[in-house]
Parts: sequence; C-alpha cells; structure tokens
Amino acid sequence: MKEQPDIVIQEVSPRDGLQIEPTWVPTEEKIRLIDAFSTMGFSRIEVSSFVSPKAIPALRDAAEVFTRIRRTPGIIYVALVPNMKGAENALAADADELNMVMSASDTHNLANVRMQGAESLRVFADVAKLGKSSGVLLNGSVATAFGCPFEGRQAPERVLEIVRRYLDLGVDGITLADTTGMANPAQVAALVERVLALIPPAALTLHFHNTRGLGLANVLAAYNKGAWRFDSALGGLGGCPFAPGASGNICTEDLANMAHDMDLKTGLDLPALIAEARKLPALLGHDMPGQVMKAGRTLDLHPTPAAVKALLA
Amino acid sequence: MKEQPDIVIQEVSPRDGLQIEPTWVPTEEKIRLIDAFSTMGFSRIEVSSFVSPKAIPALRDAAEVFTRIRRTPGIIYVALVPNMKGAENALAADADELNMVMSASDTHNLANVRMQGAESLRVFADVAKLGKSSGVLLNGSVATAFGCPFEGRQAPERVLEIVRRYLDLGVDGITLADTTGMANPAQVAALVERVLALIPPAALTLHFHNTRGLGLANVLAAYNKGAWRFDSALGGLGGCPFAPGASGNICTEDLANMAHDMDLKTGLDLPALIAEARKLPALLGHDMPGQVMKAGRTLDLHPTPAAVKALLA
Repeated sequence: MKEQPDIVIQEVSPRDGLQIEPTWVPTEEKIRLIDAFSTMGFSRIEVSSFVSPKAIPALRDAAEVFTRIRRTPGIIYVALVPNMKGAENALAADADELNMVMSASDTHNLANVRMQGAESLRVFADVAKLGKSSGVLLNGSVATAFGCPFEGRQAPERVLEIVRRYLDLGVDGITLADTTGMANPAQVAALVERVLALIPPAALTLHFHNTRGLGLANVLAAYNKGAWRFDSALGGLGGCPFAPGASGNICTEDLANMAHDMDLKTGLDLPALIAEARKLPALLGHDMPGQVMKAGRTLDLHPTPAAVKALLA
Repeated sequence: MKEQPDIVIQEVSPRDGLQIEPTWVPTEEKIRLIDAFSTMGFSRIEVSSFVSPKAIPALRDAAEVFTRIRRTPGIIYVALVPNMKGAENALAADADELNMVMSASDTHNLANVRMQGAESLRVFADVAKLGKSSGVLLNGSVATAFGCPFEGRQAPERVLEIVRRYLDLGVDGITLADTTGMANPAQVAALVERVLALIPPAALTLHFHNTRGLGLANVLAAYNKGAWRFDSALGGLGGCPFAPGASGNICTEDLANMAHDMDLKTGLDLPALIAEARKLPALLGHDMPGQVMKAGRTLDLHPTPAAVKALLA
C-alpha cells in the first residue's frame, strides 16, 4: 500500500503555467508533459482551461489535450471553468473535476471573466448542478483571495462569504489563490485558520505565486496552521501580466525539495521533476524561476576540490 | 527618538554580493552604493573583505573603499576577515567590526581559507586579542552551518562547539551562515533554538542564501524562534560557485517588503532600496534574482483596466 504523503502537491503548470506563455506549446508537447506528470506521483493535475480561445489562445487545444492524455487510474485530471460553456466543454472532454474560478475582487473578476462576482456565483449554481448530475468532482477557487492588483487587500469576510457560497453548491474542495503574489505569511496563517473552521484540511488547497519571493514562506505558514494541499508549477512556470520578469506559480520541484528536506513526504519523484523542468527553457525560449533545477537537490554533493585534496595530502 | 525595528536587516551586498561577480565594479561605484545604503536606514553594512586579492579580485580595493566611504554615526561598517593579516588591514582601514569567518565543515574551510577549522580558531584567538585592544566590535561567523556542498549536513554539535569557541574569544555577535543555500525551515528552527540557549537574540544574525528558493521561509522559521537579525543583499546579489544561475543571498528589498506586509518594522526605506536595486542589472550586466524590484511593492496597485471600466459604464 502506498504511503500517505504529508504534503500533497498538485501540478498546475499545464494550465496556470502555460496560459501566459507567448510561445505556442504544441498539443503533442502538452500531452507528453502531462503524461510525464502522471508517472511522477501526482494525484491531481490541472490539465487545461475551458475559456475563450481569444482570451487565452495558449490553451485553445484544451479539449484535444484532455481527450488524448493517457489517464492513470486514481489521478484526478482537472479542468478550470469560468462559466457554463466551459463546464459543458470540460464534461464533453471527460474532465474528472471542474475547477470553478472567481475572484474575491469584483474588478479582477470583471477583468478576468467579464462578470461581477455575484454573476459568477449565479452561473456556478448551474455549473454545480450540471457537474453533480455528471458525477464529476467540483472545486471552488477564490482568486485574488489575498489581494487584488487593482483593489488591494480583500476583506477576509469577502473570501469567507465566497467559500460559504461554494460550500452551499456542494463543492468537494476549496482553493484559496494568491493570483498575483500579494499574500504574506501572517495573512496566510490568519485566513487559513478561519477557512479551516469551515472545512477539513483535506478539502483545502492553497495556490501561491512567488511574485514577491514569498511563495514557500507562505506554504510554510499555511502548513503550520494545518493545511497540506498546495498547487505549484514545474520550474515555477506562470507569471503575472502586471509583473514582467517576476516569478509565477511557486515551483513544484523547489517545494518538493523543501518538503523532503523537512522529512515531509510528497510521494513525488524529485529527480524526474528536475529532469523535466530542465527541458522547459528550450521549450519556451526563456529561463525559468525554479532554483532546484539550477542548484540541484540540497544533498546533491560536489567532489572535494583538488586544491583541498592537495592541502590534505 | 527612532522607533526600534522588529527585524534588523544588515546589508551585505558590497561584500557577499560583489565578491562573486565577474564584472569589475569600480571603486567609485562601490563607494556610491555604500553611501546610498548609509541613507536608507541600515544600522550595519558589510563593506568588504580583507582577503587575498588573488582569491577574490573583485574586492581587492577593500582598503580604499573603507577609507573613502562617508561614515554615518551609529552605523557599523563591517569588514570580513579570515586571518590575522586581514584583521590588521581591516583595522588600518578603520573598520568598526571584524567579522571572523570559518566553516563548520573542514573541507569547506580548506577550500575557502586554506586552513582546517582548528587552525582558524587558533588564528582567531590572536585576531580577537588584536580587535579587543583596538576597541572594535567582533563578530564570529559559522559558514556552512546548515550544510556543506562537499560534506553534506553538519552536526549541530559542531556548529555549537564553534559558537562556544567564539564566545570564549569574547565576540559581540554570532552569525550562522547558510553559505550555499542548504538550510530548511525545520533545521533552522531547531538550530536557532539551541543557539538562543547560549546567546541573546540581539547577538545572533542569520545569514541565508536563496539558492534553493527557501531563503524567506528560513527567515520566517528563525523569526518564529526568536531571532530578528538577518543579513541580506540588495537585488539578491551573490551566488554560489556550485549553482550557476541560481539565486545568491536573500534579497534585501524582498525581505523588507515581506516584513512590512507582516507589520514588522525594519526602519528601511523600501522605495529607495527598490530604486537602487533597479540600477544593478546595468551595473553588472545581468538580471537580478530579486522579485520586488520587478513586481513592485505588494500594495503598489495598478489602474483599473479600460475594458473593466467599459463594462461598468
């Protein structure tokens, strides 16, 4: 029997990583990457997003990717859906889970999906009904849960209100997303504590970005409050349109390396992740923010320098 | 009266940042940078290193830099010294503090300063005597305190032994340095707890590198155990010869931004730091790992997009 991980890391690079990339990643290559993830120990992989191809051309092949990946039993292949049309398309493509996304900030929700939050919630009532009748899993994501690049800090009460509305719709899980990297550890600890008064840790995912370098510190703050599910992206893929050059999602292999160093099991094949991350710069034409792909695992040691050997001789 | 900071951030970029840079930074420019730091709220700045110019040519102008910077009363201008000759030169250049450095790992100490640890300690007995008679401050740094790239993990007992030896020499402060970015938050918490049983928090500095992305998570772990002095480098300058392309020291402005977001006072002028960090890529000819210099401070908000305004109109 497989050992239970202490920290569950959910790979989101095919969706949240690639959506902002200006370089078109061929469908074949997306499928190859997701199939590789399926062999590395993940239990949940966010495959793509069913959104307008005009809004996010990088993911216009969502349906084809979904239908052509090799499914491993036990792995949940997730589709992000902002609306009913997305949900229908995701179900047609046989997604295992619909990840509904709306922002705590109305301004951000309007910018992202052209709806006020209240309208998103009305739409999600229908999406949830459809999802339930189709027998798929449902996740409710709160984007900009820790801050909005237009509005600033969001009241925790607003985030909790959306969480409760999602729970009323019967979701299986909740994700708090720090969409543009504005969270800090004190804020994370406080919000996680409040959300874990409503749902069990197994139902809560934290989705951090490393935009201001705080990603792993925020993971630690959430973990110390009892959360143990985290989204991350290979190589730290992803980004923020408001922070050119800054980091994107927290980096899968950096997070796994930290966890393993702390004797926390992730169930992930770290060497395989690093090898895959090292292919990304050639695929996408730019450096990745991931550190472990450059530095190696913490205990990948180096040979004693010749000069030292000479001194000791 | 000046408010007491909650976290004291000590700038080390002129020494630990520049020492690995292949591009020669003109003496004038080093002096300008240090003089700028003197106006930004730092109470301690590591100015340079008195080492063999053959070993570290980038800092061969240590004496000139020290004698030409504009000293601000109350700021401690630190010189790193690995041996007696370095100490004599540092005193001749009127350093306020001698920062003695040796590695927990003998292999690393041999590679770094061509001495076994025991020899470094014998030398430091003389350095400390000289320093005391000159009335300067003394700091004892333990490099590779959390791991050595050749030997791997170092026994905490070895680190504590060196700390005790430094205390026997009458040092004013101790620095635990994660020289090549191998520390993790659990390890940091455990070691800080043990060291704080020997010395008060005011006498302890943590020096982290972000080589594997854990820098700020490690700061948080140390802070949660009572430590509040941290070294960092503007723009995340610095590096590790074994991790080409990986991050160097933790980034001063990223750390200050995190602290301010957590309502922890640093006394630092964050906008001035960011402005100065943004000059580094042109000075050094490469990108910096710092994130806040790219993304802006957390609450530097962006205007509502025109498309959203149109939807709301």
